[in-house]
Amino acid sequence: MKELATQQALVDSFSKLPGIGAKSAQRMAFAILEMRQEDVLEFAGALKNAATSVHKCPRCGLYCDTASCPVCDDPARDHRTCIVVSMAKDAYAFESLDFKGVYHCLGGLLSPTKGIGAKDLAIEPLLRRVEEEGIEEVILAMNPNLEGETTALFLAKILGEKHVKVTRLGYGLPMGASLEYADSLTLEKALEGRKTL
Amino acid sequence: MKELATQQALVDSFSKLPGIGAKSAQRMAFAILEMRQEDVLEFAGALKNAATSVHKCPRCGLYCDTASCPVCDDPARDHRTCIVVSMAKDAYAFESLDFKGVYHCLGGLLSPTKGIGAKDLAIEPLLRRVEEEGIEEVILAMNPNLEGETTALFLAKILGEKHVKVTRLGYGLPMGASLEYADSLTLEKALEGRKTL
Repeated sequence: MKELATQQALVDSFSKLPGIGAKSAQRMAFAILEMRQEDVLEFAGALKNAATSVHKCPRCGLYCDTASCPVCDDPARDHRTCIVVSMAKDAYAFESLDFKGVYHCLGGLLSPTKGIGAKDLAIEPLLRRVEEEGIEEVILAMNPNLEGETTALFLAKILGEKHVKVTRLGYGLPMGASLEYADSLTLEKALEGRKTL
Repeated sequence: MKELATQQALVDSFSKLPGIGAKSAQRMAFAILEMRQEDVLEFAGALKNAATSVHKCPRCGLYCDTASCPVCDDPARDHRTCIVVSMAKDAYAFESLDFKGVYHCLGGLLSPTKGIGAKDLAIEPLLRRVEEEGIEEVILAMNPNLEGETTALFLAKILGEKHVKVTRLGYGLPMGASLEYADSLTLEKALEGRKTL
């Protein structure tokens, strides 16, 4: 008995997801075969919708499934404060907070080793937005690693020539952390960023 | 900004898979949004195919995506030897070996606590196959746990009344195991099943 072609196609597709190896993909394919038909068709429909109706907002780079961007085209939001993220998914983390400003997605981070330069990212459009849309504060929200830091410093430098306040997320101990297990770099940042009580 | 409806539908579907929690489902949904459109459409197609073209063989209970069962309808296989499994997916483990016999899937295991009795499983069809198809050996291949043992003993009893050889998979130390870490039940089975060298 050969593997069913239908099943093998499922395994192939599941294997493309992040963190899913051959064994997990196989288990998921079997789960699909055991699932109620309507659930599987719903799943297929959700994927088809995602492939056909979701696009990126040409202004901020976040995902939209409607003609207008739910952030850029919302007059109730504060269009003077803009969080800059590297990937669109990072923006959604701020939405669970009370943040009511807007976003700008770069589409990646500067990386000389991967050959990603300023021209490969949405940096030029960011400068244009700062000039044209009355943005007063740009909050740099890259991940705190080498590429994130490089990108943030680069942006801080070129944004410094514009009339705009540039800030960066605070670094330090994450809430609930234990001093005992904190790495020295984080501890150093926490000490640097200490506040008067 | 509300979550995109399209994205939420993806998260809901991914959450129904085994071992996928809310966070993993979210990560997978974002991965889908970042994937190439053709890959996502292929994924959707594979799911749709699985939902519409895969059915269970009415004789052995394994998955088929063609009109004839690749096992039952294959004259090159040994139809006198039948492995009995509880779930269809268990059968595929034997296909990676050189096993060339046929299968019978029960669709579950006897479980008084879950209210699953002999009538809820494909036991009657198994007895009929043994009588009508010239099966000479039934190999019981249930998982070695309480429900699996109960089911195997029950089947051994009722099959004992037919003219058929009933065997069970050997229990013992798994290959590559370390005696030091083996549980006592496994060790006991290994000692019981010792062989002359």
